[in-house]
Amino acid sequence: MRNIKLIIRYDGTRYNGWQKQGNTENTIQGKLEQLLSKMTGEEIEISGSGRTDSGVHAIGQVANFRTNTSLSLEEIAAYMQQYLPKDIGIVKVEEDKERFHSRLNAKKKQYDYRIYLGKENPVFERNYIWHLGEELQIEEMEKAISYLEGTHDFKSFCGNKKMKKSTVRTVEKIRLTKQGNYVTLSFIGDGFLMNMVRILTGTLVEVGLGKKKAEEMPTILEAKRREVAGMMAPAQGLFLMKVWY
Amino acid sequence: MRNIKLIIRYDGTRYNGWQKQGNTENTIQGKLEQLLSKMTGEEIEISGSGRTDSGVHAIGQVANFRTNTSLSLEEIAAYMQQYLPKDIGIVKVEEDKERFHSRLNAKKKQYDYRIYLGKENPVFERNYIWHLGEELQIEEMEKAISYLEGTHDFKSFCGNKKMKKSTVRTVEKIRLTKQGNYVTLSFIGDGFLMNMVRILTGTLVEVGLGKKKAEEMPTILEAKRREVAGMMAPAQGLFLMKVWY
Repeated sequence: MRNIKLIIRYDGTRYNGWQKQGNTENTIQGKLEQLLSKMTGEEIEISGSGRTDSGVHAIGQVANFRTNTSLSLEEIAAYMQQYLPKDIGIVKVEEDKERFHSRLNAKKKQYDYRIYLGKENPVFERNYIWHLGEELQIEEMEKAISYLEGTHDFKSFCGNKKMKKSTVRTVEKIRLTKQGNYVTLSFIGDGFLMNMVRILTGTLVEVGLGKKKAEEMPTILEAKRREVAGMMAPAQGLFLMKVWY
Repeated sequence: MRNIKLIIRYDGTRYNGWQKQGNTENTIQGKLEQLLSKMTGEEIEISGSGRTDSGVHAIGQVANFRTNTSLSLEEIAAYMQQYLPKDIGIVKVEEDKERFHSRLNAKKKQYDYRIYLGKENPVFERNYIWHLGEELQIEEMEKAISYLEGTHDFKSFCGNKKMKKSTVRTVEKIRLTKQGNYVTLSFIGDGFLMNMVRILTGTLVEVGLGKKKAEEMPTILEAKRREVAGMMAPAQGLFLMKVWY
């Protein structure tokens, strides 16, 4: 059987996230499986590098599926391009070795979170940014970041309170960039827990607003309780940027 | 009475254009008048620098209205910011002299038209760009532009076939910029006829695709018939950028 790897871009605004789930069929995974099953005449199951929440976007989501189709990679790309909704795009279609698995083989991921500080409505970006509308103390946030980078138990930053597996992760780098009224937080790590990037972002924003102190970060990490970390930032500012294998 | 001038930004995707018209109340002008009437308790009429078609966007639309309200400019801005839908933004609120009229006093306008040449779906820009998906011969388009700039009778480029007033306009500059797969056409002129920018764009694209020759432009201008010009480019690539007074 062939193992096809896809790089996918999507605007998550009108979807219930990546993952297929019971009744709510309006998911990216669902849309792709439906289309690929129609294309191949097989029952295609696609697995992604990870879930994205409802409203979260992707610039470089990776997924793979197995098929016996004799269609060329170009034909698959052209078919998908033609029939996918306009808010899902195929960046690349390639063939990988039989054992490749987009989730299990992922070594590293990058998520970007975008924040807008200006007062005016970010008219053309309203679905792609958190409209905070207030100034942030960048230096304080940088200080907080230095406590969060590295290998820690991120249980306090995990949205799944019943998580039984290890909540230890390595966040290699959190890069903050500010250009005018725009702030982007880039997170690179070996893996992220449920809602982790959004809770890290919410907590860092609370530091930037003076509601929390940078020096509280070690205590928050040690507490291992969701309640002590900050708020969860809204979905629409978050982008899955890249997956490394 | 006070004369208030607004600079407005909007995503035209879900509106029936700028101008209020009979039954279809879902217009930018309608939304603004409704809100301002509620704010002042007066029956506010707002006039814009010009109409934009259904689906066309604005970065710098200008409008003005007369009112007896004692609200400060800051209060007006804050109220509008708070209650306007997220796809309309107020960039500036200022007081102008009594006789200022946003349409009659406009000296010059700039419209930008954005085109995407790549094959992949422009996922995050699908409502803000024309997805052409083909290469364009830029040099040919530049040649055609040189015939179109200047003062001409643009009747062949006018969407209103029953137009009785003068169809002579001065297009001071058409600037073409290409960055990777993105082409932007910027039009600066003293005024534009109905659909004129979209018909100019469609015609220039036909030149870029080799369907029309640059040298045909003078003949098209002289014909003064809509049929001889090219197609009308879709609404969603067009932005009203700036109005000069």
